Amino acid sequence: MPIITVQANQLSLETRRELVHELTQSAARIMGLPPETIVVVLECRPAEDYAVGGVLLADRHREGS
Amino acid sequence: MPIITVQANQLSLETRRELVHELTQSAARIMGLPPETIVVVLECRPAEDYAVGGVLLADRHREGS
Amino acid sequence: MPIITVQANQLSLETRRELVHELTQSAARIMGLPPETIVVVLECRPAEDYAVGGVLLADRHREGS
Amino acid sequence: MPIITVQANQLSLETRRELVHELTQSAARIMGLPPETIVVVLECRPAEDYAVGGVLLADRHREGS
Amino acid sequence: MPIITVQANQLSLETRRELVHELTQSAARIMGLPPETIVVVLECRPAEDYAVGGVLLADRHREGS
Amino acid sequence: MPIITVQANQLSLETRRELVHELTQSAARIMGLPPETIVVVLECRPAEDYAVGGVLLADRHREGS
Repeated sequence: MPIITVQANQLSLETRRELVHELTQSAARIMGLPPETIVVVLECRPAEDYAVGGVLLADRHREGS
Repeated sequence: MPIITVQANQLSLETRRELVHELTQSAARIMGLPPETIVVVLECRPAEDYAVGGVLLADRHREGS
Repeated sequence: MPIITVQANQLSLETRRELVHELTQSAARIMGLPPETIVVVLECRPAEDYAVGGVLLADRHREGS
Repeated sequence: MPIITVQANQLSLETRRELVHELTQSAARIMGLPPETIVVVLECRPAEDYAVGGVLLADRHREGS
Repeated sequence: MPIITVQANQLSLETRRELVHELTQSAARIMGLPPETIVVVLECRPAEDYAVGGVLLADRHREGS
Repeated sequence: MPIITVQANQLSLETRRELVHELTQSAARIMGLPPETIVVVLECRPAEDYAVGGVLLADRHREGS
């Protein structure tokens, strides 16, 4: 039943596969649960959807900061 | 004010209509609240965004598991 | 795999049981999925954790609005 | 570290910039934290993804309600 | 209908009141919506529930970092 | 900036430390990001807050299923 949600920028199919596998294995081992009980949700969004310090990541990337 | 969020795969417009109606009616009746106070959010994502047991649903569907 | 999250005020054990049963049955029927694949998360919080129109629900309840 | 998530309809780039700036400044001032520690996530969805009172916002907009 | 969720540490009642008021007013003005349509959810958790850089905030506070 | 949220049952302080460390290290390596940019949120709830197949986990545990 544990649900792990990852909010990040766009991820390739390969990165998704590796990420869900690794996070599930770590969580299962550490929480002592069968991997089959663990759900992972990948919320991948463009840089226009995130901001740090009041500035969109998209603008930070444009400014190289 | 109750907020019901449904995270699922892609849903047709008809399914969305039926789902928000039914979930709102059930929740309103059981919690004793006016339906107008209930907000539903549908987070519909492709199978590449979900994993169970460390395997993307997209890959599970391809493998027929 | 669908995940239904309900954000509401405090709920009794009986209300929780009825709510998770009804929401799961409705979602399973409408989305054509086995009930066993549906996870429900109940995020129950006090009225100090919610606001509508810029006013805490706790204050609205005190003012009887 | 505070995370502010805004779930809304589609927003222009200009509106996003103003929104993340204002919300971050207000939260930083009120919580007494450096703006750089505040993350904002914008979850912008079409009106088919939201419902109030059991009716999709998309349908409410069509009916002019 | 916009929903603003704030995930932060524990907040006093006064801070909550000011925060929900300010965030609602800013969002209403910037998005051109009536304040009454805006819901705010405050998810206040202890420092043991958050981590940055792989270290619990509770431990960072103990180490003064 | 990536945010990893774990929704699970109650976790000890030691388990929390190990979990946030491992998840952060794996995500940083796989996504090619500095660990310091990764935030983890632990949403730990009792078994009365979760249901699978329309039955509260608390009731499933009582029935030994």
